[in-house]
Amino acid sequence: LAAAAATTGHAGVTSPYRRKLEATADMPFDADVFRVPPGYNAPQQVRPPAVSLIPPICNGFLVSHLVFRLVRIAQVHITLGDQTGTAMTVSWVTASELGNGTVRYGPSPDRMEMSAQGTHTRYDYFNYTSGFIHHCTLRNLKHGVKYYYAMGFGHTVRTFSFTAPPKPGPDVPFKFGLIGDLGQTFDSNSTLSHYEANGGDAVLFVGDLSYADAYPLHDNRRWDSWARFVERSVAYQPWIWTAGNHELDYAPEIGETVPFKPFTRRYRTPYRAAGSTEPLWYSVKVASAHIIVLSSYSSYGKYTPQWTWLSDELARVDRKATPWLIVLMHSPWYNSNNYHYMEGETMRVQFESWLVAAKVDIVLAGHVHSYERSRRFSNVAYNIVNGKATPVRDLDAPVYVTIGDGGNIEGIANNFTEPQPSYSAFREASFGHATLEIKNRTHAYYAWHRNHDGAKATADSVWLTNRHHLPTDDSK
Amino acid sequence: LAAAAATTGHAGVTSPYRRKLEATADMPFDADVFRVPPGYNAPQQVRPPAVSLIPPICNGFLVSHLVFRLVRIAQVHITLGDQTGTAMTVSWVTASELGNGTVRYGPSPDRMEMSAQGTHTRYDYFNYTSGFIHHCTLRNLKHGVKYYYAMGFGHTVRTFSFTAPPKPGPDVPFKFGLIGDLGQTFDSNSTLSHYEANGGDAVLFVGDLSYADAYPLHDNRRWDSWARFVERSVAYQPWIWTAGNHELDYAPEIGETVPFKPFTRRYRTPYRAAGSTEPLWYSVKVASAHIIVLSSYSSYGKYTPQWTWLSDELARVDRKATPWLIVLMHSPWYNSNNYHYMEGETMRVQFESWLVAAKVDIVLAGHVHSYERSRRFSNVAYNIVNGKATPVRDLDAPVYVTIGDGGNIEGIANNFTEPQPSYSAFREASFGHATLEIKNRTHAYYAWHRNHDGAKATADSVWLTNRHHLPTDDSK
Repeated sequence: LAAAAATTGHAGVTSPYRRKLEATADMPFDADVFRVPPGYNAPQQVRPPAVSLIPPICNGFLVSHLVFRLVRIAQVHITLGDQTGTAMTVSWVTASELGNGTVRYGPSPDRMEMSAQGTHTRYDYFNYTSGFIHHCTLRNLKHGVKYYYAMGFGHTVRTFSFTAPPKPGPDVPFKFGLIGDLGQTFDSNSTLSHYEANGGDAVLFVGDLSYADAYPLHDNRRWDSWARFVERSVAYQPWIWTAGNHELDYAPEIGETVPFKPFTRRYRTPYRAAGSTEPLWYSVKVASAHIIVLSSYSSYGKYTPQWTWLSDELARVDRKATPWLIVLMHSPWYNSNNYHYMEGETMRVQFESWLVAAKVDIVLAGHVHSYERSRRFSNVAYNIVNGKATPVRDLDAPVYVTIGDGGNIEGIANNFTEPQPSYSAFREASFGHATLEIKNRTHAYYAWHRNHDGAKATADSVWLTNRHHLPTDDSK
Repeated sequence: LAAAAATTGHAGVTSPYRRKLEATADMPFDADVFRVPPGYNAPQQVRPPAVSLIPPICNGFLVSHLVFRLVRIAQVHITLGDQTGTAMTVSWVTASELGNGTVRYGPSPDRMEMSAQGTHTRYDYFNYTSGFIHHCTLRNLKHGVKYYYAMGFGHTVRTFSFTAPPKPGPDVPFKFGLIGDLGQTFDSNSTLSHYEANGGDAVLFVGDLSYADAYPLHDNRRWDSWARFVERSVAYQPWIWTAGNHELDYAPEIGETVPFKPFTRRYRTPYRAAGSTEPLWYSVKVASAHIIVLSSYSSYGKYTPQWTWLSDELARVDRKATPWLIVLMHSPWYNSNNYHYMEGETMRVQFESWLVAAKVDIVLAGHVHSYERSRRFSNVAYNIVNGKATPVRDLDAPVYVTIGDGGNIEGIANNFTEPQPSYSAFREASFGHATLEIKNRTHAYYAWHRNHDGAKATADSVWLTNRHHLPTDDSK
């Protein structure tokens, strides 16, 4: 009964690689990767003192100087503060005391003469109260310039650095790390170390950060420890955030009914700069790439805010200015693992035709804890009565990459559908990360690295050609 | 290429009826149906006075008695206040003054000895400020008993009545009105009058109430006028509300980015009693029917709140206690009008298999401004690679009724797909409403009435048999 499946040159690859079986367990709270910086203060998660001496609004320098100079700065992370990186949002957490919301920054550690004042928030989650979560956007950055930034006073000062992304343009090389479903296991740590060794300039993170919800009562201390774990990368380069299902933290059984509460309090996105009205869908323009982030767990039916925004956003894409069009989401549309099979169908049905019409180059997703790369296929001819619902080869279509193999506590997804469907080019049940090196307007080198090899070894790679500027058949 | 479409006994009917062409226009603000009750007060929509003499919290009797006795009560409507109707939520609007939030009620106009105290809210929408919107839940009602209720003091007292729904049980007759996409045109008025003449006990309203968003700046005075228009029915019997796309009022161009703001401020649903965490999806149990209301414009992907709730809710359905399982949504899954064609696909893909497994009797939707009734079809065999995506006859499947023909300002949708698909039993481009008369656990009489006939005439009708208790082939 199967309708005409499109032919491909050859069958897809199901990698025969067999990873050594290991315990997939979260690293203990006292693991070195969760270490906290020096300072007298308590850990990052405590209830506020019953009687607080700290005025609720206290941006004044004098107050800060007197009371807060010793407050420990932890969980530092940065993300773009506008669409192109002339602003960068710095976030961090202080513990039982508020501390000072000022970030000093400048082109050298000795010349941090600019400063910006942040805001802070806290949240309660059942029996947990967060520390003070600070967000501060550094503005007036110059593209391509390295900046140092620091928070704190006295011996609690911590200094970090980042390089503002290059000015967007058609032929601006840039190397992205692609990571998803990271968690905080020993495998997670291996993934992050491999990525660090491979040296990307920014991370496209496709959702599922801490897996705090794997713990009773969604133990939010695991949100804190995760942020300490990844600080060694994300304090120094922007990570672009996508919301995954483990960011929902929807737990009506304990009265927590606001979806994405911890995630949105802790992580910022430059959604307003992108014309969006919610932080879960937005876009950025980095080097030669226009990157659109979608939310698999928000509404996307016709007329909804996300639908409206994406419709407008696709019209704003200028492939001459930013040749590469990349879309991030958590739940994949093309994947052939029995784990989470077809969960992305509902969103695919809504948006796939738009992405094919827009000639998106690559769609990155996570969710499935295994690696997979698709050929260029689409499935957009269906009209209910014509029976045309089989994916077919389509050079206008994106390559779909599932990179949910960061190594979290839920373990590997090693049960692929058989036979391998024609849309699937390569799949392997290993943990790892990928990199995407945009070379110019026509070529980008994509590579996937499994954790069990040396960092530089690639288990799967492909040269991608741009769908707007050189739409050749680049699937293999 | 079309795969094997299931055969049906005979072709579906596209009604040859041609309605007289008329102007589809909203009734003017001064139309008699929008009349306001007596009283000295201003209309229901005004900005609050610059200096208010009214204390912001003023539930005390003395204050009410002195200040508020003359405040006009308008826009009265009721809906279930719990799952079965032992509570009823009364809502109304007072204009520039708050008035008293108390509702007195009892079994006769002379014995309104019970009372309940409501709450109130206001909202701003761009340049509009609502009146005081009151919600008050009357509790401890007895099933099947007629109650009178009154608000106001002195000559502004207004008295209404309703009959609490009968106690749920397997063989409890009940007559529902089915109305959608009503709006406030002359056609809308005709639809409502026809429904009143047909005498249902409660209305299952499938979304799109006022069409205020058809006006510049979503003129919210049209939310007020709509509530005055339908008061003649909904003050006397509960309407069960479904959110449609015209309830979104999402208008980022004027800074209004909170979806469903006017709707959720004005209309209440008993969602907490149904274990839901949002007012847009919930359930009620009326007579022999378990009625599930879904939101087409909220998230429903796996893991989302609506998905989680529906999964739990379907497990709670007890067909022995409430034999009839009815689902309401705004955007239809099975419809063959070119207007809005396939807009419901994304939600169908997510939930259809659940509804078929649950043997839902009937799915009611609106959105398409035309009438259509389906045969029992399903489309749940698809697995991406098997090509099985054509709707097939399935006696476990619901009958899908599109009743978005209330008569709103957008006019009729008279462009059907050709040929009529096999899942479509009857379709006609006329305004009207339907009724569903549940007789007992096995039989229900469904009838659709076009506005251009006398109220009692039926243009389409069918005896439905219950999918749990008598799953015979009842399509025609």
